Amino acid sequence: MAPMKIEIIAIGDELTSGRILNTTSSFAARHLFDAGYDIYAMNTIGDSPRLIGEALKRALSRVDAVLVTGGLGTTDDDLTNEAVSKALNRPTMPNLEILSNIRAHLDEITANPVSDLEKLAWLPSGAEALNPQSQMAGYQLIHDDKPIFFLPGVPRQMRHLMIEEVLPKLSNWHEDHRLTTYHRIFRIFNLPETEVNRQIASLDLSTDVHIGYYPVFPEVHLSLTVRDKKNNNAKRLFKSSCKAINTVLGDSIYGIDRDSMEKIVGNLLRSYNLRLAVAESCTGGLICSRMTDSPGSSDYLLGGVVSYSNALKTEYLGVSTELLDNKGAVSREVAEAMAVGVRERTKADIGLAVTGIAGPSGGSDAKPVGTVYIAIATDEENWVSKFNFPGNRKQVRELTAQSGLDLIRKYLLRRESHFLSPAQTCKEVF
Amino acid sequence: MAPMKIEIIAIGDELTSGRILNTTSSFAARHLFDAGYDIYAMNTIGDSPRLIGEALKRALSRVDAVLVTGGLGTTDDDLTNEAVSKALNRPTMPNLEILSNIRAHLDEITANPVSDLEKLAWLPSGAEALNPQSQMAGYQLIHDDKPIFFLPGVPRQMRHLMIEEVLPKLSNWHEDHRLTTYHRIFRIFNLPETEVNRQIASLDLSTDVHIGYYPVFPEVHLSLTVRDKKNNNAKRLFKSSCKAINTVLGDSIYGIDRDSMEKIVGNLLRSYNLRLAVAESCTGGLICSRMTDSPGSSDYLLGGVVSYSNALKTEYLGVSTELLDNKGAVSREVAEAMAVGVRERTKADIGLAVTGIAGPSGGSDAKPVGTVYIAIATDEENWVSKFNFPGNRKQVRELTAQSGLDLIRKYLLRRESHFLSPAQTCKEVF
Repeated sequence: MAPMKIEIIAIGDELTSGRILNTTSSFAARHLFDAGYDIYAMNTIGDSPRLIGEALKRALSRVDAVLVTGGLGTTDDDLTNEAVSKALNRPTMPNLEILSNIRAHLDEITANPVSDLEKLAWLPSGAEALNPQSQMAGYQLIHDDKPIFFLPGVPRQMRHLMIEEVLPKLSNWHEDHRLTTYHRIFRIFNLPETEVNRQIASLDLSTDVHIGYYPVFPEVHLSLTVRDKKNNNAKRLFKSSCKAINTVLGDSIYGIDRDSMEKIVGNLLRSYNLRLAVAESCTGGLICSRMTDSPGSSDYLLGGVVSYSNALKTEYLGVSTELLDNKGAVSREVAEAMAVGVRERTKADIGLAVTGIAGPSGGSDAKPVGTVYIAIATDEENWVSKFNFPGNRKQVRELTAQSGLDLIRKYLLRRESHFLSPAQTCKEVF
Repeated sequence: MAPMKIEIIAIGDELTSGRILNTTSSFAARHLFDAGYDIYAMNTIGDSPRLIGEALKRALSRVDAVLVTGGLGTTDDDLTNEAVSKALNRPTMPNLEILSNIRAHLDEITANPVSDLEKLAWLPSGAEALNPQSQMAGYQLIHDDKPIFFLPGVPRQMRHLMIEEVLPKLSNWHEDHRLTTYHRIFRIFNLPETEVNRQIASLDLSTDVHIGYYPVFPEVHLSLTVRDKKNNNAKRLFKSSCKAINTVLGDSIYGIDRDSMEKIVGNLLRSYNLRLAVAESCTGGLICSRMTDSPGSSDYLLGGVVSYSNALKTEYLGVSTELLDNKGAVSREVAEAMAVGVRERTKADIGLAVTGIAGPSGGSDAKPVGTVYIAIATDEENWVSKFNFPGNRKQVRELTAQSGLDLIRKYLLRRESHFLSPAQTCKEVF
């Protein structure tokens, strides 16, 4: 039996004028795809009741379920409910639960006139609010025996309702229409797409294994998908393909699925009970900021110094003014002195330092834009790597941050013999 | 006369499975909108010849021009040309210029068999290559007297051909179909969307002025568009509406269009010849990282300290251990000591410090998650603001960084009487 076909409709002039990048449709598509549905089409249209009605009716004529985002708010350009009401001939009626909820909360939101907020409670007849207790718009409508979900366009609210309400409801709708999907993203750094492609092509994987290559700067993502109703075959094929890929690509794979480089580095530091401090010049705080994205990062990150000016390199890292004068701030020697300085002053186990020329100005023939030194200082040894990164300022900064973290990762992987191999990261799904 | 209507079709399984975020459609929409066209709809479909054909024929039936991206490459999942050929009944034929170009370059790209690359030269009959000398796919087809543009899905190539080929060709197509478009985004921080809406509604603007509201966390963007063939009226209306909006929203508007808070703060610091240093606890480097995004930021940013651990607050900022013990790291007193410390040690003009509880753990009844102190130290005075930010860890961090920068902005706006008012930021377009 074919998988259930779903169409996504995103509404908003901010999307069709290109002012706002549409991230919610992509989020929905990924979660629906991973749950075993087929995405028939994704549409983006402006705040026009006629276009909204047309798109909705066309979708109902060709797919099994529809997801609509945007245009549910209180402002005058929020026209989705009006359009749905007209297109499907379902007059809007007040949802009493939402209405009483709004009135109960009016104290908290005193600045607003009642009438504006009460717009949220007027839904097309037959609509069932997804979460009437919350202050998020969003409802389900069953029309022509097909479920239609309406979600707010605000990414945070949309993502919440997608995960908590839409996916469970869809899952109960037609169990038979879902294919078992085994899917993995391998996240690869420091290996070009063509090289990844060449190595994977050499594996001669089964034609039932679908492979995709996606450069997502500064990484390459390799997607592996096996879909089948016959669970056992698909599972076995997925498992053996994962192993083969892990074997040929080795530790160029830094993580899988939703892993991030900073999360992987943090987990390694925590497992070895080591603490990191960072001295950043050209990245201006990007490395520390990424390392502290994750909760609990104070377990392994002490902090660091953004030594954008030379005076701070001296004051905070003990880099001598002689060294700065003789070798220049962007040099192997200064990078090492920064890493040693931040490690010693903060009493960290590992010091990481980066110094380089992010551009667009500041380059020279000897040290062009993109010249970056990355140094690591540990209890055992110090070392410095030199890079010539391509790209603009933003790209040089991102490549520098990612490379610095990747060097720490590779150092930690080799620090002890019983390290966590990428192959082992594959095991948790089985 | 109505503006020319354009439809955008993006093709690729990587898009409909949500693995890759579709940025090219948004790029195209923004440039087409700014050039005075209407975006009728944006579609995203998978690598299916049937769906590609359907979408193309539907678009031709309802708009004046079509832009198609993706599926033009050499691999087996690139099916656009095949689909176009079938849907529009235009057999593919080899483009001799592209073919000879490929053969001439074969030495450089030895790894690929001839047949794979020659796929690039086989285009639907009537196709005119956009840039046959380059190694980028992309062509124009005129069908039913409507232009259709086919561009590669690779963002860099797509963007290049969009700017260099598609926009000039469209511009020559039907000059009469373009409207003069005056458009501005007002970027607002620290005022809720409903309040922005209420204040703008009170202005009673002309119905020819199109207003949109877009929450883009942590900001609200207000979009103002006036489109007209009669240039003078539209321009006058746009100018007076801008002024009215600037008047009612005042310095809640921090910038316009593609401005960022960090760029605005940087420009103010540069214009006053002041230098900033930052001590960050819960934001972990986010503020410094944002401030150094822009080229030339070394003019006004000395750097700073990420004092994630208490030891670093003492070592690098001179915060006494007694103060830390008595008041706690998240306190008014420690925030002020951090700001004073980083200002004095780095010899900066202004010290900015943030300390708070980003969560999810670490909160208490007295100091719940979201409690944040932001301190500013200057030559004239020091002050501390307390916040209780809503949201998850990422949101608390972003609100803290944005609020810290906004406090610096407002301090600088009031520092001298001849400050740059938001109203003045409106003038450069006239």
